[in-house]
Amino acid sequence: MASYRMSATEFLSSGTKVEDYVRALLDRIAARDVQVQAWAYLDPEFVLSQARKLDAIPLEQRGPLHGVPIGVKDIFYTKDMPTQHNSPIYANDAPPVDAALIIMLRSAGALIFGKTTTTEFASTTVGTKTMNPHDPARTPGGSSSGSGAAVADFQVPVALGTQTIGSIIRPASFCGIFGYKPTWGAISRENVKVCSLNLDTLGFFARSIADIELLADAARLEDDEKPIAPFQIEGAKFGVCETHVWPEVGPGTINAMQLAVKLLRDRGALVEELDLPGEFDSITRSYLQAFQQDAATTLMSEYIRSKDQLDPALVAFVENPEKTSHRDHLAALDNLAQLRPKIDVIASRYDAIITPSVVDEAPEGLTSTGNAALCGMWTALHVPVVNVPGFAGDHGMPVGLSLVAPRYHDRRLLKVAAAVAPVFAAGGWKSNL
Amino acid sequence: MASYRMSATEFLSSGTKVEDYVRALLDRIAARDVQVQAWAYLDPEFVLSQARKLDAIPLEQRGPLHGVPIGVKDIFYTKDMPTQHNSPIYANDAPPVDAALIIMLRSAGALIFGKTTTTEFASTTVGTKTMNPHDPARTPGGSSSGSGAAVADFQVPVALGTQTIGSIIRPASFCGIFGYKPTWGAISRENVKVCSLNLDTLGFFARSIADIELLADAARLEDDEKPIAPFQIEGAKFGVCETHVWPEVGPGTINAMQLAVKLLRDRGALVEELDLPGEFDSITRSYLQAFQQDAATTLMSEYIRSKDQLDPALVAFVENPEKTSHRDHLAALDNLAQLRPKIDVIASRYDAIITPSVVDEAPEGLTSTGNAALCGMWTALHVPVVNVPGFAGDHGMPVGLSLVAPRYHDRRLLKVAAAVAPVFAAGGWKSNL
Repeated sequence: MASYRMSATEFLSSGTKVEDYVRALLDRIAARDVQVQAWAYLDPEFVLSQARKLDAIPLEQRGPLHGVPIGVKDIFYTKDMPTQHNSPIYANDAPPVDAALIIMLRSAGALIFGKTTTTEFASTTVGTKTMNPHDPARTPGGSSSGSGAAVADFQVPVALGTQTIGSIIRPASFCGIFGYKPTWGAISRENVKVCSLNLDTLGFFARSIADIELLADAARLEDDEKPIAPFQIEGAKFGVCETHVWPEVGPGTINAMQLAVKLLRDRGALVEELDLPGEFDSITRSYLQAFQQDAATTLMSEYIRSKDQLDPALVAFVENPEKTSHRDHLAALDNLAQLRPKIDVIASRYDAIITPSVVDEAPEGLTSTGNAALCGMWTALHVPVVNVPGFAGDHGMPVGLSLVAPRYHDRRLLKVAAAVAPVFAAGGWKSNL
Repeated sequence: MASYRMSATEFLSSGTKVEDYVRALLDRIAARDVQVQAWAYLDPEFVLSQARKLDAIPLEQRGPLHGVPIGVKDIFYTKDMPTQHNSPIYANDAPPVDAALIIMLRSAGALIFGKTTTTEFASTTVGTKTMNPHDPARTPGGSSSGSGAAVADFQVPVALGTQTIGSIIRPASFCGIFGYKPTWGAISRENVKVCSLNLDTLGFFARSIADIELLADAARLEDDEKPIAPFQIEGAKFGVCETHVWPEVGPGTINAMQLAVKLLRDRGALVEELDLPGEFDSITRSYLQAFQQDAATTLMSEYIRSKDQLDPALVAFVENPEKTSHRDHLAALDNLAQLRPKIDVIASRYDAIITPSVVDEAPEGLTSTGNAALCGMWTALHVPVVNVPGFAGDHGMPVGLSLVAPRYHDRRLLKVAAAVAPVFAAGGWKSNL
């Protein structure tokens, strides 16, 4: 296996020097960048110098993520690289500050590799320069576009993202990798550019659940009860939830859902249909209102200073031409809040809820990052979500499904996902990269 | 009147040069600093150079806060000053970044004057070096200790604070000034060191409501309906709410509450007793749990990197020796969430709820910032709160009362507070400064 194909877990157990691994990744990027363009900022010489420093650390002083290269969405502050938010307002801005999560990852020995592309302030659906590594004519999704593409293309083993509506799960599905959105509030958002106070959640991309667990360890994510591994599919119970957004889904997702049920049942799992109570249909309207008015607050300083440099969609959040009231905003927030304990009760009846990640495979074109209508409700419910790849759309592009658990059942959900992953891997999609 | 005694509003209409006003404030600080010590960072030469730059701006280019000197709690990032959080971990740390609110205030022409003292990460009740300007043997309160003391002592007209439990309202009451905690989420917390994701709110200190309104304008705080000014006390309706914390209050607060009712009734207001439903008694336990576990998340990066440099109380948040579960945390968050629409309905029956700000006047000693038991419930309910001074404790120290309104009725509450302020000013306390 070429070195660049190693996962973080494989690299850590391989005895490979950090410099050698990093050099293989940089070579991979040099060969592929023209067709992927996942990076907003990458300085190969700096990366190599960091690698050499890490190689010089005595074995007994090395952390659990020693030398693991991490791609970082360009809305996380990193003390040694620019943080530009894909905004001309912050072009070449390089505050020498680390986000709290970056501090934690560096403390565990990680190598902060470079900054991955994002839509403007992670708040628009306007495509970035980044192409889907499986088909450069298609979007990798967004807003964590570069993190999804870079991990899928073996340019880094793991990367960081954020999700306000579907910005982790959607690119993970479009790129055919694992995406994990933890319980809201489980990881500090300090020194990350927040879009929505009530929705934004930090999370991870990887090509294996084991790698996501590595990052979850470094972020100190813990359930109340430590899950017992390994989780067994035989006898497990899943709830298949189409949600009220189902009329929007296309053939790729319809096929994935049907096949997932069959594959799980074939392996002895109990799979039930889960119809959420009717009040959950209100959730799309509620999270869109929460998002819009939260974004108006977080974008106000940029609006005041540099309105002409903001995307018109972001200007509209602040100017609120439809005159959405605070009363509406509060009704939305209160509605979401009262649904959260209810979804916890429902989700606790299953080992996981299985639900679409996206409407279909990645659409053609780079101007839009695609439809996130199926992700938003779970984000707004604050529950943990994992995208598990494995299925194929009509054009051979990847389609993933989401596993969902009650809030703060993150580590258990990752164990379930680790068992589901090889099952879904028989779903008909294989990466050609 | 000595120049340093001018409020921001008075300064703006006075035609005074910024440099002259600032020089008067710096002279005041030079005379008083040994007895107050409100500043974590202050560079008089830099302040004067900023003032001269502002004076050079042509009249037609000046913003609505042109030259208004603002004290900034030392957990807000300021691009031209250190931000140290009263933590040895960040001693001399000076990230060249402005908090979103600082950007907005500078855009309106404000002069960022210096950094005011805070308890460690605004998260402990351990006193700072700052003394109460009315009695150096007493605490000014916390965690926004320096902002409260500096404004009360005429060292700056206005200052910024944050409140997780009682960190604006408590020092405002102890120092005899106005403190305003807006609706949660109404002002972006970007680049402010957050303690609790679910509770923290930015706000203001001033010696008049007019000055608080100036800052609220710059922060673009708006109600759904623009309030009609002036508000009339005659015929107004107030609900006096002792809350379940009443058994903790002392004679200063008991006197203030009784006197407030009498003064308002004398001026023709309708004042009713307001007994909250019993379920509101659960709120203290809920917000303390929310605070503790939210703080564990936000302090995790400091804990991992520099545990030995954290106050033991902060270490305990992270280490959670009582093993409070995520289940408890979520139950607390969900309980607070379901109470919020209920308090909106209750509060909307009145022009304002009147409730204690603190248990009593500022206690003796500088080691603790005092009891915030009466503030926390309103913070957790996300409603706007204004401390209005006017009353006196047994030792002649100031005692304020809180006015409370439904969420996002902030501007209306400020109008009510402007009318209540002269009524409470007959409450027996006068500043000797």
